[in-house]
Amino acid sequence: MLALTILGNNSALSFKNRHQTAQILTTNDQLFLIDCGESTQIQMQRYQIKKNRINHIFISHLHGDHYFGLPGLLNSYGLTNRIEPLHLYGPPQLIEIIELMQKVSDSTFGYELIFHPLRKAEAILDLPALTVSCFPVSHRIPCWGFSFQEKRKPRKIDIEKVDYYRISKNSLTAIKNGEDVLNELGELILNEKITTEGMPPTSYAYCADTLYDESIIPFIEGVDLLYHETTYLDEEREKAAQRFHSTGIQAATIATKANAKKLLIGHFSSKYENLDLFEIEAKTIFKNTSVTVEGTTYLIDKPLR
Amino acid sequence: MLALTILGNNSALSFKNRHQTAQILTTNDQLFLIDCGESTQIQMQRYQIKKNRINHIFISHLHGDHYFGLPGLLNSYGLTNRIEPLHLYGPPQLIEIIELMQKVSDSTFGYELIFHPLRKAEAILDLPALTVSCFPVSHRIPCWGFSFQEKRKPRKIDIEKVDYYRISKNSLTAIKNGEDVLNELGELILNEKITTEGMPPTSYAYCADTLYDESIIPFIEGVDLLYHETTYLDEEREKAAQRFHSTGIQAATIATKANAKKLLIGHFSSKYENLDLFEIEAKTIFKNTSVTVEGTTYLIDKPLR
Repeated sequence: MLALTILGNNSALSFKNRHQTAQILTTNDQLFLIDCGESTQIQMQRYQIKKNRINHIFISHLHGDHYFGLPGLLNSYGLTNRIEPLHLYGPPQLIEIIELMQKVSDSTFGYELIFHPLRKAEAILDLPALTVSCFPVSHRIPCWGFSFQEKRKPRKIDIEKVDYYRISKNSLTAIKNGEDVLNELGELILNEKITTEGMPPTSYAYCADTLYDESIIPFIEGVDLLYHETTYLDEEREKAAQRFHSTGIQAATIATKANAKKLLIGHFSSKYENLDLFEIEAKTIFKNTSVTVEGTTYLIDKPLR
Repeated sequence: MLALTILGNNSALSFKNRHQTAQILTTNDQLFLIDCGESTQIQMQRYQIKKNRINHIFISHLHGDHYFGLPGLLNSYGLTNRIEPLHLYGPPQLIEIIELMQKVSDSTFGYELIFHPLRKAEAILDLPALTVSCFPVSHRIPCWGFSFQEKRKPRKIDIEKVDYYRISKNSLTAIKNGEDVLNELGELILNEKITTEGMPPTSYAYCADTLYDESIIPFIEGVDLLYHETTYLDEEREKAAQRFHSTGIQAATIATKANAKKLLIGHFSSKYENLDLFEIEAKTIFKNTSVTVEGTTYLIDKPLR
């Protein structure tokens, strides 16, 4: 199971209590930060995000509303004596900016910052619990989406069944490894009879800032939760295209064509006070749509089969 | 009369509702922004600062807690179609950072940004109502204080006195220019008899981040309001010195030796929850001291003589 917490749902110009883009994806044991607009640190405090559990930060592109909160966050890790290395994924020039800021401040972070430049669609992180890939989206400057795919969890041993089939406890490791085993009577017991399925793996795709672009579909096909930007309502479709952004109808169309299970929309222009209109618009195409709400956590899970 | 509004009173690491350094100095007709920590824009919204009345921004030094809010503010001016040129004063490398951020975002601001690098103690701005000078303070990297000095306002014509002395209205311009004039009886009437003094000019000095350093005194001598940092209480005097910061006692000693009229203290370390201790400490040396409170505006005025 994954969970996504929205720290900012607005586009570049701040609007009342809406903040620039930042999201936290949570697995059991760690947090991933996706984009880091100005004030992300303050939003983390507000929503009690344990920022020391973040070891991987993903920056989609170098428009300020997606990374101006990063330098301050990196500094804060240093000031709070972070020891763990921190992995940062983003466009190659991101590290130039950070290094220049470090140079002029005559500072070091005090922890290891490991930068991973994004250059092509590929797997960029492989952890025991999940993999992360990046894929290009269509924006005015190079911009990346990120896809998070949980790995299938091992089946769980059903200890009552192990007893029922009179299997020696010495076989538990073999069962755990998925093997069929012999019981005390010399009968072969199939692994699936003595184990149950683990929680089904789930997936999340973040499509950053992008034009309507069907070429992203192969990268997000069948995803459990899709985040797609909707800076404008469809009545502003032309302006959206000029500015390399999308509308509610367009996001919902992508979700439909990609067979996504659920759609979250965000990156709203400050001109809109009433965000319900975005949800109403998108739902005409893709019913399972929600407007992102700051501070809200969306669970990404699947029923056991 | 000047007025100073505090947008952030904390040092680098954010603490609860305390923000990084930013101050607004107000004259009758415009605002000056002094330092611009992360989230300054949001603080401006919170305290209803009319950011389009800011034409001059002063950055003391290139530690992030004094300028990480600047790139976002400059972007926002562009997004809201600012036309007025904007003057920015800071260490020379500040413009390198801004230009790099512009380059990677493939953007222009759409208004003219005029950068004034700070290189030595000198007058950096001369307006009809006031002058601004910078002076070096002692920090780990090059760091500047700023001194704002109102100009003496012209005397005001007392129209009842003009009538009383039987002076022709044709002489008003001459009186306004400070001249003595002849009345209808051919008598010479001294200018001071038919005018009253304008509001007395006042002054403000911002000492940024600094060690205790008496060499700044000539630049702030006799100032009406002095802001001096107090990152630590005096019990941490050694740590303060190691980190190129000051204590409450040290700030109050500078205020005393400089014959300041009033002292404001700020840039508190996040380790302190109770800021009253700073005021109590400083007042043992300099009675007219106040702890800066975010959102509070401090008037800088003088009684008419």
